[in-house]
Order: sequence, then structure tokens, then C-alpha cells
Amino acid sequence: MRTLKLTLAYDGAAYAGWQVQPGRNTVQGALEAALAKVTGAPVRVVASGRTDAGVHALGQVAGFTTDSPLGPAVLLRALNAELPRDVAVLEAVEVHEGFHPIHDAVRKRYRYLIHDGPVRDVFRRGYCWQHPGRLDAGAMHRAAQALVGKHDFSSFESSGAERLSSVRTVYAISVGRGRGAEGHLVTTEVEADGILYNMVRAIVGTLVEVGRGARPESWPAEVLQAADRRAGGPTAPPQGLFLVRVEYAEGRGGMKDEG
Amino acid sequence: MRTLKLTLAYDGAAYAGWQVQPGRNTVQGALEAALAKVTGAPVRVVASGRTDAGVHALGQVAGFTTDSPLGPAVLLRALNAELPRDVAVLEAVEVHEGFHPIHDAVRKRYRYLIHDGPVRDVFRRGYCWQHPGRLDAGAMHRAAQALVGKHDFSSFESSGAERLSSVRTVYAISVGRGRGAEGHLVTTEVEADGILYNMVRAIVGTLVEVGRGARPESWPAEVLQAADRRAGGPTAPPQGLFLVRVEYAEGRGGMKDEG
Repeated sequence: MRTLKLTLAYDGAAYAGWQVQPGRNTVQGALEAALAKVTGAPVRVVASGRTDAGVHALGQVAGFTTDSPLGPAVLLRALNAELPRDVAVLEAVEVHEGFHPIHDAVRKRYRYLIHDGPVRDVFRRGYCWQHPGRLDAGAMHRAAQALVGKHDFSSFESSGAERLSSVRTVYAISVGRGRGAEGHLVTTEVEADGILYNMVRAIVGTLVEVGRGARPESWPAEVLQAADRRAGGPTAPPQGLFLVRVEYAEGRGGMKDEG
Repeated sequence: MRTLKLTLAYDGAAYAGWQVQPGRNTVQGALEAALAKVTGAPVRVVASGRTDAGVHALGQVAGFTTDSPLGPAVLLRALNAELPRDVAVLEAVEVHEGFHPIHDAVRKRYRYLIHDGPVRDVFRRGYCWQHPGRLDAGAMHRAAQALVGKHDFSSFESSGAERLSSVRTVYAISVGRGRGAEGHLVTTEVEADGILYNMVRAIVGTLVEVGRGARPESWPAEVLQAADRRAGGPTAPPQGLFLVRVEYAEGRGGMKDEG
């Protein structure tokens, strides 16, 4: 029995999220179907974390075990031939037997795209939040810095999560506006040791309240202190969110599970 | 009666091209429906040229006349509220009465995107030709320079076009590979006084034969000389093609109609 680690990109538009659900089209379901066809046996995959319906991935990580003798390079090509066009395996590597995609992850990076131009971008409509009205990206960036560090992020967690603690460490948050042809694009990047359920979308929804001038730059710090989801801004829509990458330490990492 | 000029962007994926066809979803049909709703009267629009099924536009131009008293800025907002999410009006201006989107155009720019990485780009799958195997973009660029100038482009024109002459002037062609995250993206740009039916896709299909090493760099010049579509490479698929912009001179220009 071998253990393999896959790095995946997917366009989440057509999927009811990562996790298999009866009667729904999910990324896990598509990947397991392709793996079963390629390896000739049922396969169960585990991802670094679930992504919600409509959320995209540039570098999701999933692991599985198999008796198949196929090498990683052959497996990658065979999977990409079987997978739907909106899912792709970017990398396949054999890893040590004890590898666990959730528990061994030490750092995750997410990106959130907002388009705030006066006319919608028809090519990005599935990949950003089209915000009506220009945002102050500088104010959003300054306000976001209060969230960096180890905190209880209850104010940025949707209910329904199964987790022991809502304490996470955010290593960095940046909010920036693009240049030239991307001048209407406001990109938020969040890097953390773990992400609570809907945490990035709740952070972005809160920062947008600052960006549109409805709240002062000091507000996200107050929201964090409140430790209550009702204190923050709305949850930003899913189609602007991308799981960018998941980092793993040598051996087992200390990353916390998302709910 | 006033004459208005609209600049439009659209994602061509869902459309059977620009031109109205009975029982088909077309960009012209969508725009005319939105205009009828906004102005309260039937409106016929004329574009700078038809785009084919699946072809995109970053800056298509269309003109129409109307008795509506709505100003261009109001019209732009109202149209964008009515149009489907994959079509947007970027600009609306009132122009002189004799303006004609086809006859007054003096220059058009098209872009064609090819992705030649070993794994498909799931986010660009509707916006590029996913080419199996890496291309020599430098060879394609050098080979393309033989097409610059005033020539009979019969070898790069699909049949079925209604046009008087297949002589066009190509002002510039460039083929280049992106950098960094865009390192698998090969972009071809063509600027000309007019574009024959399928001309850019025929040029790209021919250049790709050079890029993949099947033909020498001197071949596109020979194809041009042959003045026969059968001499060239295949027609590149539609989803990689973008009409980037249409330029108009003051007064009436000398642009030739596309078939």
C-alpha cells in the first residue's frame, strides 16, 4: 500500500464544494471517480480542508492510499485525462505512510478577489465579488493588520463547525489594488496556521465595510475583541475565494483542522 | 433621432456568435432585447463586424439610432442592469449622424491565447486553446513577420464570406510567451485594417505548425503566396480569440467590411 499526495486546481463554480454529499456534484466525488477508474479500485481521498460551494482552488492538497503500481507521473496524466475540465491535478508525489493532509499542514494561504469598477468584468464574473462602488484598499489593508497574530477568531467563524478551538494564528494579511488593466481589482491575501469555517470570507466582508467607508479603520480590531460573529460584517460571496496553497513541514506538522 | 456608439465586452462561450439567428442565443440578440427594454422601442444594432460562436470581445463596437431622450451615461447603467452577466457595455457615446460601425472602422486588434503547459489551466479553459506540447513562441513570432503588410490573405480566409476582396493590410503581428505565473501562455496579437472570415484563427493555426516544429519558419510566407486556404494550417478553436479593440478615424474611415 502506497500513500500519494496530490496538488489540485479547480474552478468551484459547478460544485457543491469539496466534500462528497449524496446526489450532489462535488470535487471530492469527481476526484474519487477518476481515481477509481485509473487505479481499478475504490479510493477514498482526504483533503487539507473542505472548500465551500463555489470556492476555487489553485493548490488544494489531497492524499490517498492505493495498491496501484502506477507511478506518480503516469497517475497524474491518467487522472487529468479522466477528470472534468474544471479540475486538474498539478502535482502527484509519493509520500511517507503516515502523511495526513489535514494534520500535517502547517500553513495555508487564501486569496479573495473583489472587482469594484463601475462596469462588471464579464471574464471575472465567476472569480470575484463584483462590488458596487469603489473601495479604499489602503484603509482595508491598514485595518486588517489588527488581525495578524494569535487570536480567538470566533467573530470570523460561521456556526456549524466541529472544532475544539477557534484560536488561530494569522501570519499575514494584505489588501492591495492592481495596476493598469487590473486597477479595479482589490486582492486580499490571508496566510494562517489554520482557517475556521468561512473565516476568510467573514474577514473580507468586514474589511469591505471599512473600504466602503461605513466603518472606521479601527473597527475590525473591535470585531475581533467581541468574539461574536454577529459583531462583524457580512460573509463575502464564495466565488471570489481561492485556496492558493497548503504548506507541509517535514514529518507531522501542527496545523489545526478546520471544522 | 440620435446615433449612439457602444463599446462592449462579452464572454462568447454561451453565444452562437454576434449575429442574430432565429432560435439561437446571440450577443446582438441580447443587446437588442436590453435596448428595447431600456428605450421602450425596437432597436437594430450594427457591430464593427460579426464575431463567431465562442469568440470573445474586450472592445467590440456597435452603433444604433434611437428617439430615446436618455443620455449616454444613463443608458450605459440601464443597459448593464438589463444585459446578461456575460455581456457588458463599457462605454456609450453620442456620435455624428453618419457614423457607421463597419465602414468607419480603420483598424482592429485581435488577441489569441494558447496555453501549452503540461497540465490544463482550469480557470482559462474557456479562454484559450489548450495545446498539447510546448510551442516555440520565438519561431512563431519570426515566422509571422512575413504576413505584415498589404497582401491577398486568401490562404487565411474560410469560405462562405461575402466580400469583394481578400486584400488586407496587417500592421503588426506579435507572438510572445508570458512570464512567471503566465509562463505557459502564448499570446498572438494581430492588428490590421480589416480581418477576413476566420483570418486570425487561420493565422494562429498556421503559426502553431511552426511552433510545434512540424513546419519551418519560412512556411507561413509560402502559405501566403499560395493564396489557397488548403495550403495553410488548421483553424484554431474559437475560445482563444478576443476582439480587443476597434479604432475609428475622425469622419469616415477606410476600413473594409468583413464577410
